[in-house]
Amino acid sequence: MAKDNQFVSQIADIETDFPQWYSDVVLKTKLVDYGPVKGTMVIRPYGYAIWENIQKELDRRFKETGHENAYFPLLIPMSFMTKEAEHVEGFAPEVAVVTHAGGEKLAEPLCVRPTSETIIGTMYGKWIQSYRDLPVLMNQWANVMRWEKTTRPFLRTSEFLWQEGHTVHATEEEAMEETMKMLSVYEEFARTCLAMPVLTGRKTEKEKFAGAVATFGMEAMMHDGKSLQAGTSHYLGQNFAKAFEIKFLDKDGVQKYAYTTSWGVSTRLIGAIIMTHGDQRGLVLPPVVAPVQAVIVPIAAKKEGVAEACRALAERLKAAGVRVKLDDSENSPGWKFNEWEMKGVPVRIELGPRDLENGKMTCARRDTNEKTELELANAEQGVRDLLAQVQTSLYERAKARMDSRMKDAETLDELLDGVNGGNFVRAGWCGCRACEDKVKEFAQATARVFAAEDTAQRCVACGEKSAHTVVFARAY
Amino acid sequence: MAKDNQFVSQIADIETDFPQWYSDVVLKTKLVDYGPVKGTMVIRPYGYAIWENIQKELDRRFKETGHENAYFPLLIPMSFMTKEAEHVEGFAPEVAVVTHAGGEKLAEPLCVRPTSETIIGTMYGKWIQSYRDLPVLMNQWANVMRWEKTTRPFLRTSEFLWQEGHTVHATEEEAMEETMKMLSVYEEFARTCLAMPVLTGRKTEKEKFAGAVATFGMEAMMHDGKSLQAGTSHYLGQNFAKAFEIKFLDKDGVQKYAYTTSWGVSTRLIGAIIMTHGDQRGLVLPPVVAPVQAVIVPIAAKKEGVAEACRALAERLKAAGVRVKLDDSENSPGWKFNEWEMKGVPVRIELGPRDLENGKMTCARRDTNEKTELELANAEQGVRDLLAQVQTSLYERAKARMDSRMKDAETLDELLDGVNGGNFVRAGWCGCRACEDKVKEFAQATARVFAAEDTAQRCVACGEKSAHTVVFARAY
Repeated sequence: MAKDNQFVSQIADIETDFPQWYSDVVLKTKLVDYGPVKGTMVIRPYGYAIWENIQKELDRRFKETGHENAYFPLLIPMSFMTKEAEHVEGFAPEVAVVTHAGGEKLAEPLCVRPTSETIIGTMYGKWIQSYRDLPVLMNQWANVMRWEKTTRPFLRTSEFLWQEGHTVHATEEEAMEETMKMLSVYEEFARTCLAMPVLTGRKTEKEKFAGAVATFGMEAMMHDGKSLQAGTSHYLGQNFAKAFEIKFLDKDGVQKYAYTTSWGVSTRLIGAIIMTHGDQRGLVLPPVVAPVQAVIVPIAAKKEGVAEACRALAERLKAAGVRVKLDDSENSPGWKFNEWEMKGVPVRIELGPRDLENGKMTCARRDTNEKTELELANAEQGVRDLLAQVQTSLYERAKARMDSRMKDAETLDELLDGVNGGNFVRAGWCGCRACEDKVKEFAQATARVFAAEDTAQRCVACGEKSAHTVVFARAY
Repeated sequence: MAKDNQFVSQIADIETDFPQWYSDVVLKTKLVDYGPVKGTMVIRPYGYAIWENIQKELDRRFKETGHENAYFPLLIPMSFMTKEAEHVEGFAPEVAVVTHAGGEKLAEPLCVRPTSETIIGTMYGKWIQSYRDLPVLMNQWANVMRWEKTTRPFLRTSEFLWQEGHTVHATEEEAMEETMKMLSVYEEFARTCLAMPVLTGRKTEKEKFAGAVATFGMEAMMHDGKSLQAGTSHYLGQNFAKAFEIKFLDKDGVQKYAYTTSWGVSTRLIGAIIMTHGDQRGLVLPPVVAPVQAVIVPIAAKKEGVAEACRALAERLKAAGVRVKLDDSENSPGWKFNEWEMKGVPVRIELGPRDLENGKMTCARRDTNEKTELELANAEQGVRDLLAQVQTSLYERAKARMDSRMKDAETLDELLDGVNGGNFVRAGWCGCRACEDKVKEFAQATARVFAAEDTAQRCVACGEKSAHTVVFARAY
């Protein structure tokens, strides 16, 4: 038993040292490793496979909503960055700069893209002439770079992978509709694929994207009650259109500036999955994005028929579209149980001589630890059903946690108590930056999103009659 | 008629000005545009969709041969590059260098990866300990940067997209087997997906990858008879293992250096497709990778039932897995014919009142211009068959061209005549660099690959008894 627990003992306690638990889990399950350059990460195959599943699910949704993929250059002339004043102010401190190339000093320094509004805007300005060219609905899968002081794998790294949608519309209404549509695509994706409930809503001026008119975000509650910004959708108004001359001749014969949007999610989502569902034994992966959905562990593998039966079952499940792994290594079953639990595989199938005699297989759910015997003859449907149940129950568990940890506060003390207790806290806010800063200083909490409804009476910081209800939380 | 030909007239003549034809075609079909930074390209949706199809086909083959995807950092410390002497000599002149980031000058300059052997080798050195960890079979889909003086979209650009496989093996035999296996995966992919015949074989020392023991390449013949290196597979021996300490404890208890390979293809393949199959009217895309496989052009679209019938047909073909586009824009049929011909769509379907009366549809093949009437009731099978025929016949046409343009030369004059005539030329070579350089100088031709069989008697340059037969050609 002591030996079987060797993995568990290597992971820090999730309740008392969540940051260390996170580092232990991402490294020991081989999701990721630290890159040689400070702040960079190597996404290892087990982590990258999650990203591939995320990409597949999102890419389908983007295409179904009319978007096409394209690819724009990595390097952006510094002069482009400065064309939108707020944008350069927000991103310049974080950019990495190429000054030399091909053995020579460059005439103009080039930024490694931190985001691509400026270079894509430049091309759109060139391509778009008439209302007939609109809307333009593009997306890009790419790496981006933001030089950060404090980094953590997936959550905040100098380089990360993401998708960035960039669209152009003839009217404000259409651009706002796109902004909200993509926010809802993200929300539905998070809910159904990542089993992750999110709060969606507008962000404050302080928290919005540099250069946007308005940013809408989705916020997810992590195991420790902190919030993680899991995706954003920006309404850019005419800010970038004016900076990059994205104009079109409208039906009425008048030249007009267009309206643009941008929206993105990144490999940060992998961190969100880990911190939403993980437990003391390690990762718990939602079946829809799990690289391995079911692992088969042979019991008494040397007994007649067991190895063959396991291989045959693996083939059947694979043919049925289940991402299945047969662990026929020489480790003990107990060792394998721990290994695959730590790696978060949703369903474990044990198959031994007794199971075969009875025409059964023993299935263990990673989320509840519950064991059930299923008919071997009906393995495909049985495993698919089980995976669907795990997916649903992970969502419900996370949703129940988020709902139970949503508090209201009328004073700063109540707000502080709330976030200290690992809650999201709804509170009134007069709308001024000073009060937002005061909350941050007093409770180390930031405005995550505007609440769906204004229920609060007074600003939690200054006591003035509040205009808005905001959800505050500590955040990653 | 003049109006209908407006597109054709905009493309330079393919026979008399192939370089201009290429530029015209890639820009006018919106595959690509020039990026703001010299030597960079923007891959537009129509071009990127080809890349997505290439990725899908290759990724499946990589996974079927046991490889997993991963992602390694973009930035490589300059000191890593210098650990393998030949490697740094080959790539240092082309790298782009990040010297500043996060508002500060970096302690050590960082290269934007021109290829990732050095950073992946560093991680492998850390991860691999025992023979049990081998083989390691990884692939990465990524952008890379090589600062080039002369650039052309897809063929040679500062930044391009590619995949790079990096594998580690316990023995020389296994590493060589992997090298050849991936070369054959590329060959099969080029043949069956791109309809592109290739010559495969080993490259000379002069032409090999910087740091490799041996490079194997696939070379394709373009419309003008020049060769394009379309993919390479490198046997790296222990060169990188020694530079990056990739060692393992073998079964016999002895610490040994491992053997590594790397292999890659890039967005250059899109250039290869264009220059293999294109004709006077523009692109000719192989159905397997064509973004649009069949376009439906309504004839007399305002006549009763036509628009509905076209929409219904598009739905049926889409459901049957055909990438179909219904062009219901307000342009004339003639305009649409030219547009979609220029864009290289393999099959055009015309549907008008008369077709509907007869229960037929008229299909035009892009490759042969042949028109056939097919039963509307059997549209799915009919279009699929037609696409398969186009795919096969494109390959056969390209293969016949390559075969008919394979010449032998015994003298430099014969070799010069051969390449002047747009041929690949087989000739004897003694194996010395001076003779290889002499061929280059005399005929502006380079050694593409060693021929499968040594048939030549004497070195084409010095007349010595030749050790090898080499295929020479002018090359992109």
